Amino acid sequence: MNLPSRLLDDAVEAFAGLPGIGRKTALRLVLHLLRRPEEEVSAFGEAIARMRREIRFCRICRNASDQDTCSICSNPARNTGVVCVVENLRDLLAIEHTGQFNGRYHILGGVVSPLDGIGPEQLAVEELEERARSGEIREALMALPPTIEGDTTIHYLAKRLESHRIPVTLLARGVSFGGDLEYVDELTLARSIATRRPYAPEGASEGGSASGEGPR
Amino acid sequence: MNLPSRLLDDAVEAFAGLPGIGRKTALRLVLHLLRRPEEEVSAFGEAIARMRREIRFCRICRNASDQDTCSICSNPARNTGVVCVVENLRDLLAIEHTGQFNGRYHILGGVVSPLDGIGPEQLAVEELEERARSGEIREALMALPPTIEGDTTIHYLAKRLESHRIPVTLLARGVSFGGDLEYVDELTLARSIATRRPYAPEGASEGGSASGEGPR
Repeated sequence: MNLPSRLLDDAVEAFAGLPGIGRKTALRLVLHLLRRPEEEVSAFGEAIARMRREIRFCRICRNASDQDTCSICSNPARNTGVVCVVENLRDLLAIEHTGQFNGRYHILGGVVSPLDGIGPEQLAVEELEERARSGEIREALMALPPTIEGDTTIHYLAKRLESHRIPVTLLARGVSFGGDLEYVDELTLARSIATRRPYAPEGASEGGSASGEGPR
Repeated sequence: MNLPSRLLDDAVEAFAGLPGIGRKTALRLVLHLLRRPEEEVSAFGEAIARMRREIRFCRICRNASDQDTCSICSNPARNTGVVCVVENLRDLLAIEHTGQFNGRYHILGGVVSPLDGIGPEQLAVEELEERARSGEIREALMALPPTIEGDTTIHYLAKRLESHRIPVTLLARGVSFGGDLEYVDELTLARSIATRRPYAPEGASEGGSASGEGPR
């Protein structure tokens, strides 16, 4: 569709660059904003730009924050000894939303995925070990995605944490394999935090292995 | 959902204020932008704000434009004598998109709707009559929504244009009653431009009345 104005076109292109928004939806949003007061639209643009410009990442857990230390890490009511290791901010928010976890977090920034060229050195693994070394962590709850890459990452992290004698726990495998943590229903996710169990490597005596793919 | 950062929350609220975007989608968009380079996000916000700040409305037809006169009104290849009266910019774009209309436009800015307190004085009716008075218009094609309000508006405009002896034409009633022009399929819309017919008030000799709701 040819738009009569370059300014209009630029704004449509900006929206259409967002995930899940096509040009038709983008145009609808732009035409909506065109009818709004100038200050409101200006505030809209500024809220977005400011968020990206000023947001900081917590020096402890890498959570998004307005300060150096995020609201979770600086909350004295939280259990500082239990650290929940998550892939990203979305998964942190999903777990917070269940209200079942009262510890701190550690955002890895991804999972080990050799096919995508992502090794442990690109993730916040060193930072996690540093937290372990400092004696802060008494339990590491691995809330990583239930995929091959997630399992590989858990395996790797468990090895790195072994020397610090930190018990590694897993979300109960109530979450379905191959899914996306963000879309797991709240109840399943909440229960899987409550029924977390110790990490047992493949072939250990426990019966069901940690990756949970054995016969029922 | 409680977000760990005020900045994040402001950005989510900004997106969630747009039509058709809920808080969950808004959060997804914000987290996407959080991963993009700062310059890109800044350019996004600026493109939106700049669009609203700098866009002008054509002094002839009120189309969105980068200049005082829009690209349609300033195009010498267009037939200046035929003016298509539309409710808003979206409908103008829908008609332009068919490629069937080569005249100019007149954006009313709404339709007469006593229930919503919208009278002719809130619409660009005076401006339309001024264009008629100047001798610019040889035909006024009413491409208003096929609703009671649209028909009322057409009736009113036809009366206003009567004294200037300007023939008023209508889109052929191929478009369904109660619909939204923007969502009419392209073929129907294109054909209804090609088969437009003279305006005949209710009960005229033509058989089918202008509002086209008589027995078949």
